[in-house]
Amino acid sequence: MTEVTLHEDPRSGNCYKIKLTAALLGLPLATRQYDIIAGETRTPDFLERVNPNGRIPVLQIGNRFLPESNAACWYLASGSALIPQDSFDQADMLRWMFFEQYSHEPNIATMRFWLHFIGSAQLSPQQKAQMMAKRIAGCEALSLMDGHLAGHDWFVGDSVSLADIALFAYTHVADEGGFGLGDYPAVERWIERVSQLPDFIPMG
Amino acid sequence: MTEVTLHEDPRSGNCYKIKLTAALLGLPLATRQYDIIAGETRTPDFLERVNPNGRIPVLQIGNRFLPESNAACWYLASGSALIPQDSFDQADMLRWMFFEQYSHEPNIATMRFWLHFIGSAQLSPQQKAQMMAKRIAGCEALSLMDGHLAGHDWFVGDSVSLADIALFAYTHVADEGGFGLGDYPAVERWIERVSQLPDFIPMG
Repeated sequence: MTEVTLHEDPRSGNCYKIKLTAALLGLPLATRQYDIIAGETRTPDFLERVNPNGRIPVLQIGNRFLPESNAACWYLASGSALIPQDSFDQADMLRWMFFEQYSHEPNIATMRFWLHFIGSAQLSPQQKAQMMAKRIAGCEALSLMDGHLAGHDWFVGDSVSLADIALFAYTHVADEGGFGLGDYPAVERWIERVSQLPDFIPMG
Repeated sequence: MTEVTLHEDPRSGNCYKIKLTAALLGLPLATRQYDIIAGETRTPDFLERVNPNGRIPVLQIGNRFLPESNAACWYLASGSALIPQDSFDQADMLRWMFFEQYSHEPNIATMRFWLHFIGSAQLSPQQKAQMMAKRIAGCEALSLMDGHLAGHDWFVGDSVSLADIALFAYTHVADEGGFGLGDYPAVERWIERVSQLPDFIPMG
C-alpha cells in the first residue's frame, strides 16, 4: 500500500481534521511536523516540493501532494461510511464543508490564531481592524450550526460524516478565539457527541 | 424527474458556476432571481424557507435546499465526466474547489463586488482597510493558478472538471475587481480554452 504522510502543525485544527478522519477509520498515517509560526512552511524547499501555497496541511500519497484539509479528509474517507452514498446527502455534506472553509474557519480559526498563538499585543493595526467583523461573522456561523443541530444529531443524515469532523476541529476550541459556546447549547451537545465516538482522538 | 431551481442573482459568479455546470451537462435548470444588493436574500421569508445563511446561490431540488455553489455543482455533476473517477483526482478536484472558496473568492470576488457593484466611494473605512490585503492575496491566488496552468491544460487530469468551472467564474471577470490578467498568460490561455467548450454559456 502507498504510504500516506501528513505534513502538519499539531496546533492546526485543519491538520487535526485529517488525523481524526484517519483515527475514526483506523487508517495508518505518518506525520511530519512543521512550526508554521516560525515560517517552516514558507521555505524554498517546502514551496517547491510540498505546496506552492505555503500552507499545511498537505497529505502526501506516495510522491503526490494533496493540499486543503477537507480534500485530504475526502481522499482518506473515500468509499467509507464517513461519506454518505445518497447524492443529495453527499452534496449536502460538501455544503457544510464549504461553509466551514468560507464562513467558519476564516473567522473562528483566525481569531484563535491571532489571540491564542500570536497574542493581541502583537497584532497589526490591520488585523485589529478586522477583529470586530470576524467576531460577528464567527458568531453567525455558530448560530447557524446551533439552529441546525437543535433538530439533528449530526450535520447530514443519521450518523457522523466528514461534515461533523470538518466543523468539529475549530468549533471545539472556539473559546481560544474568544467565542464562548454557552449561547449555543445544541453545539455543546454535539461536541460531546463527537468526543464520545469510538476511536476518537483529541487534538494535538 | 424532480424539478431543480436555482435561486440566484445573475451578477454572482457563484451562481454562474452552477448555470455553467448545468449547460455543459445539458441539464434543465429553472431560475428564480433576487437582487442581493437590495437585500432580497435577507428577508424573513428567504431566511426561513430558502437559506438561513442569507446567501445565494441555493439549489432547490424538489422541496430540499442546497446552499454553497460548489456543493450545488457537485450535485448536478454527480456521475458525469465533470467529476473524475480516480480517487486521487477526485480529491484533487475538491482541493482546487476548496482553494477557490478559501483563497480566491474572498479576495477576487469580494474586490469585484466592492469596486464594480458597490463603488469605491461607498466603501466603509473597514472595507478600505482590507483592500490591500485582498489585492495581495488575490494576486497570490492567480499566481498559483498560473504556475499550475503553465504545465497543464486543465486543473485536474486531461479534461475539464468542476475545478475549472469553479475557478473560471470569478477569474474571467477578475479585471472588474482590478486584477489585470496580463501577468498571468497561462490563466489567459485557460480562460480561452474554457470559453470554447461545447455548450459553454457566458455569465449573466
